[in-house]
Amino acid sequence: MARNTRVQADHNAPPVTQILAEFVAGHPSRGWSDAVDREAHRTFLNWLGCAVGAAHHEAVEAALAAVRVLQPSAQATVAGRAEKVDIASAALLNGISSHTFDFDDTHLKTIIHPAGPVASALLALAEHTGASGRQVIDALVIGIDVACRMGNTIYPDHYDRGWHITGTTGMLGAAAGCARLLGLDADRTRMALGIAASQPIGLREQFGTMTKPFHPGGAARAGLMAALMAQHGFTASPRALEAPRGFAQVVSPKTSWNEVTDELGERFEISFNSYKPFACGIVIHPSIDACVQLRQQGVRAEDVERLELRVHSLVLELTGKKEPADGLQGKFSVYHGCAAGLIFGKATEDEYADDIVNRADMVALRRKVVATVDDGIDEASADVTAVLADGRRVHVFVEHAIGSLQRPMSDADLEAKFGGMSDAILGADRTRRLLDACWGLGDAADVRALAALARPA
Amino acid sequence: MARNTRVQADHNAPPVTQILAEFVAGHPSRGWSDAVDREAHRTFLNWLGCAVGAAHHEAVEAALAAVRVLQPSAQATVAGRAEKVDIASAALLNGISSHTFDFDDTHLKTIIHPAGPVASALLALAEHTGASGRQVIDALVIGIDVACRMGNTIYPDHYDRGWHITGTTGMLGAAAGCARLLGLDADRTRMALGIAASQPIGLREQFGTMTKPFHPGGAARAGLMAALMAQHGFTASPRALEAPRGFAQVVSPKTSWNEVTDELGERFEISFNSYKPFACGIVIHPSIDACVQLRQQGVRAEDVERLELRVHSLVLELTGKKEPADGLQGKFSVYHGCAAGLIFGKATEDEYADDIVNRADMVALRRKVVATVDDGIDEASADVTAVLADGRRVHVFVEHAIGSLQRPMSDADLEAKFGGMSDAILGADRTRRLLDACWGLGDAADVRALAALARPA
Repeated sequence: MARNTRVQADHNAPPVTQILAEFVAGHPSRGWSDAVDREAHRTFLNWLGCAVGAAHHEAVEAALAAVRVLQPSAQATVAGRAEKVDIASAALLNGISSHTFDFDDTHLKTIIHPAGPVASALLALAEHTGASGRQVIDALVIGIDVACRMGNTIYPDHYDRGWHITGTTGMLGAAAGCARLLGLDADRTRMALGIAASQPIGLREQFGTMTKPFHPGGAARAGLMAALMAQHGFTASPRALEAPRGFAQVVSPKTSWNEVTDELGERFEISFNSYKPFACGIVIHPSIDACVQLRQQGVRAEDVERLELRVHSLVLELTGKKEPADGLQGKFSVYHGCAAGLIFGKATEDEYADDIVNRADMVALRRKVVATVDDGIDEASADVTAVLADGRRVHVFVEHAIGSLQRPMSDADLEAKFGGMSDAILGADRTRRLLDACWGLGDAADVRALAALARPA
Repeated sequence: MARNTRVQADHNAPPVTQILAEFVAGHPSRGWSDAVDREAHRTFLNWLGCAVGAAHHEAVEAALAAVRVLQPSAQATVAGRAEKVDIASAALLNGISSHTFDFDDTHLKTIIHPAGPVASALLALAEHTGASGRQVIDALVIGIDVACRMGNTIYPDHYDRGWHITGTTGMLGAAAGCARLLGLDADRTRMALGIAASQPIGLREQFGTMTKPFHPGGAARAGLMAALMAQHGFTASPRALEAPRGFAQVVSPKTSWNEVTDELGERFEISFNSYKPFACGIVIHPSIDACVQLRQQGVRAEDVERLELRVHSLVLELTGKKEPADGLQGKFSVYHGCAAGLIFGKATEDEYADDIVNRADMVALRRKVVATVDDGIDEASADVTAVLADGRRVHVFVEHAIGSLQRPMSDADLEAKFGGMSDAILGADRTRRLLDACWGLGDAADVRALAALARPA
């Protein structure tokens, strides 16, 4: 029974657990450019809007009902709701709600949604410890850096194997951020990363179910608890990330260690974060954008005989659901996305309501979408031609969709998106104050004022 | 960027999530032989003794300190301690403590330690719901069956990849057991298994640190919460176990589905559970047993010039630590195990105390152990020859160690082992009453009486 299936075990990996621990514990506060700091605020604001928006979704209700069985203490805010729960459960619930609409943020190099696991853990912990806003922003930049650098290390092979990378690197980001927020030294931070390393959460098979948003929520909770346990002396392998039987080598055949070490503390992965204008998987965005542009050019759904869509194979692999049965499945249907773009000129959460997905004109239009794989087209692009009943052909090619790094959402776009989710729950006035609190977070003496605004009055 | 690293994806796997869900929800109470029911009681008793024994270990103290930050409600017992915590935290803590001494149980086909994740979740939940002892025993048999059958499906390739299989199948066993205890129907049970499937917990790199016992604890908590979430309507993929991007295919290149389906409901994996006579990894046991036998034959440590040990390669791969620095590392040292067997004639937790591991005579003797790999010797066997200073050679070959299925511990052995851990914590009288409560669990109207006995008076 001689057995060793990982023939390519790497016994000479650099000590990345230690390297990251020293970075997390030692990098100076606000040790980056104003642009990075601004991106941290945009990341936080965008995450919070999503969490508020889904606060009463059935996924959050179900998870909260389970948490209530634990009779949690009222320690921390569940965004958009009146009740407080213990900090670990708050991390879980905010992680679930912020990802429920698939409307959060995306680190485009890895398609990690980094704020869900990291910010959810940080707000809960900071509210309990009374941390300053600066501490939260610092921990957010650093936590996201750890999650995304580990993601860069193992992407795409890890994702291809079937892991949902947001939850399988997010626990490391959450642990790093919480360790930073707690002021752990490098040794204890290393233990926090190690405890978290044993808990990758997420399978791609869950896409289209509530367990997809559970992944960032579970990762937030796991990372927060890992940091608390390390703070109190719990131990893990000091080489938990890089050892032959450690995290990276177990979950991925690819381990590009330089992704951890290159320009660490100089280049920050949050700079590559983007925010979704459409409430669905990022690979659908160019197609929706193209259909929105067709609509702007006067194309009307009732005149369309056929929508010819040419996209990279990954688009159909991830979002090729031809007949989505409900809103959650609609998130994984480029066909529904195209129909929403053309009929509504947008694809916010409202356009993913179950009754919209099943509306006759939407069903009819999505069946007119003829999708063709063309790997000469980049994943970030889409080529759409509307063939009209009168024989006319209207063509749009989108190289980079709105919301991409090349065409980022403005701060005003982000505020409008936030309001679209928050106004109905917190009211327009409270939403405005909450937005101001987000923009001013780095200067806030105590994050609790912001947390209080995230609860209905 | 056409990418598909799992070329052998199996799109025709049987619906094992559904099959197991129907088994968990529908198999009749006590639908097995008296021998199986007896084994369930032995499994529970042995698990509880281990949990009581490690109740004040530094790993449990550290984890409990982190849990206390959450200000948990007093819902459920932490075995061996006065305080109660919320049920999810109780599952976590009892899972940690019961595996801390590496003294618990072993499903020998997969080296899963099944009671840690399953019983820890069940006792916590049952204490809260007021379940009967029969419900707990039923859920234990069924939960262990699910964990071990999924383990059989992916072992050994999954383990070889670097996963600690106890925590990476244990969450399924805990979810199954808790779903059964909650009386969920097959559909909700399927969701519970699905939510749990996204949360495999455990890397072999953690062996020798507190995060190893964290694995069954984390799995217990994950499974319990998965069942509670499913009860309240949380959804997951109905094919989360078998789909190409579901649990089994993502975490293992091997997926022998027949291990789930063959004789399901007729053959019970708990029948193949065993209990450790020595407080360390199972692969060391034949070597320790051989050294205990050498001692019984009159060999004295001070007369030994060399201990020639011949074992399967896996023994040194898992437990080849030549110079353990403390008790935890000693658990992964066949050298220390041999020294303990010869010097003390036993290897309980006492012989893994830090000061014993570093005692001069122990250090000297373990350095005289010369280990040789011989894959002609089974993993379950060991061949030891003591070469004495006067030139004599004393040889012992152990085919099956004490504690194996071939040489099982008697009920009296189990009681003695339990007492060795519990007497000092609960007192001999309370320990006796707790043992009686364990043997009578299947007939107990309410599990709370047993739980109360597991707390110090």
